[in-house]
Amino acid sequence: MGTTSKALSLLRLFSNSQPEIGLTELSRQSGMNKATVYRLMSDLAEYGFVEQVGADRMYRIGPGIMRLAVLRETTVPLRSIAKEHVRALAEEIGETTHVSQVSGDELSTLTYAYSAKHGTRVTMEDAERLPFHATSSGLAVLTYSKVALVDAILSKPLDKRTSHTMVDPSQIRDELRRISARGYAESVSGFEQDVHSVAAPIFAGGATVCGALAIAAPVGRVNEALRSRMIAAVQERARMITDLMAGAMPVSLDSP
Amino acid sequence: MGTTSKALSLLRLFSNSQPEIGLTELSRQSGMNKATVYRLMSDLAEYGFVEQVGADRMYRIGPGIMRLAVLRETTVPLRSIAKEHVRALAEEIGETTHVSQVSGDELSTLTYAYSAKHGTRVTMEDAERLPFHATSSGLAVLTYSKVALVDAILSKPLDKRTSHTMVDPSQIRDELRRISARGYAESVSGFEQDVHSVAAPIFAGGATVCGALAIAAPVGRVNEALRSRMIAAVQERARMITDLMAGAMPVSLDSP
Repeated sequence: MGTTSKALSLLRLFSNSQPEIGLTELSRQSGMNKATVYRLMSDLAEYGFVEQVGADRMYRIGPGIMRLAVLRETTVPLRSIAKEHVRALAEEIGETTHVSQVSGDELSTLTYAYSAKHGTRVTMEDAERLPFHATSSGLAVLTYSKVALVDAILSKPLDKRTSHTMVDPSQIRDELRRISARGYAESVSGFEQDVHSVAAPIFAGGATVCGALAIAAPVGRVNEALRSRMIAAVQERARMITDLMAGAMPVSLDSP
Repeated sequence: MGTTSKALSLLRLFSNSQPEIGLTELSRQSGMNKATVYRLMSDLAEYGFVEQVGADRMYRIGPGIMRLAVLRETTVPLRSIAKEHVRALAEEIGETTHVSQVSGDELSTLTYAYSAKHGTRVTMEDAERLPFHATSSGLAVLTYSKVALVDAILSKPLDKRTSHTMVDPSQIRDELRRISARGYAESVSGFEQDVHSVAAPIFAGGATVCGALAIAAPVGRVNEALRSRMIAAVQERARMITDLMAGAMPVSLDSP
């Protein structure tokens, strides 16, 4: 791994559940020695990609990221475009909705919305990394991803999140074929126990899949009527977001 | 310059006026040879920090930035906190407002709002880099920055944006002392001809300046009454944002 890749791989360790990390912990989790981590983090800090805070000098993501993010959003405004649809969809269906975005071999939450309709709801986390094989969003994205990415992801050990998580690569490949045929992905308790979600892919700049739109509801609330509405609505809205992203649906999805 | 720094310095070349850049141009603007630029950009692309688009394979900022940005905003929500105040202030004063954020030796626009009150208004650009010496926001931030940063910035050649731009370091240092005494910065046509702006610093996590709040109006509209309102309002709102950012005003600003 080159120096730049090493530095950028350190940024991957930061997450919603671990927004601040100390030097020792970065070294332990990356498998790099402390001197190397220190040098790489200093380079990243110089450009504002990380910053150190508090008496114990913990590292966190820095302000320099924001200029690039504002620039990215101006150029490719998935988040701003998705935000309104995610909000409208949550209101329309009365359940939690979210849009995730794919970046290389990672899928993560970009924006989400809750409905005020029910006292119980599926809750989401910002910037959460979503496993491809265990979520309806991940499966929707994988279905339209390049073969190389699918192979790479399915060749790694797959985390069994719940007793319902599919971890057999050939079973997952069958599922991807089914998703391709019907145009949406579905997961019942595959990521979190008692969460039923449906997802449809979003395409940008041609037929490149850039993420997924999903609705997630507590299993107990999803009767056949709600399930049909969720499936129809998520596909319709994903199509609208795709249009706004100058994306094109694959032919198989284009004529419902 | 180390490899990581070289890679990150390439990201600085992307801007609102130059959101997509080809390999040849990146090489020309960075002074690095094409093979080096290609290798560094490939490392950045692998982590989603840049992506290539179109038939001519231009580079632009990639989706990988967004997960880090969402994480940054969750941890240090300057943009979300500022957004509402920026909007309210634009409505209150009837002029363009914005918040900029400092990252290392750069200051850039984080969010802004227009007022519908007038047909003419100062327009802003997303992710624009603001020169410290030529803008009221930059001067407000410099006033409360570390001496090393002030020295570094004032020791470089200063761009004379308009005939009114201050470019004499000792004159600027005098101005910083005046700003420190009165608590706000002011610029008349220093950045753009016929734009009058006032700015107040925002502090986060203690007495660390993290950016500035500013109001900008066409020079012709700024009579003494409007000017007084702009100054009072920008200071009041900057104080409110500082509170929300768990920042502390320096003692000199704390007792108006």
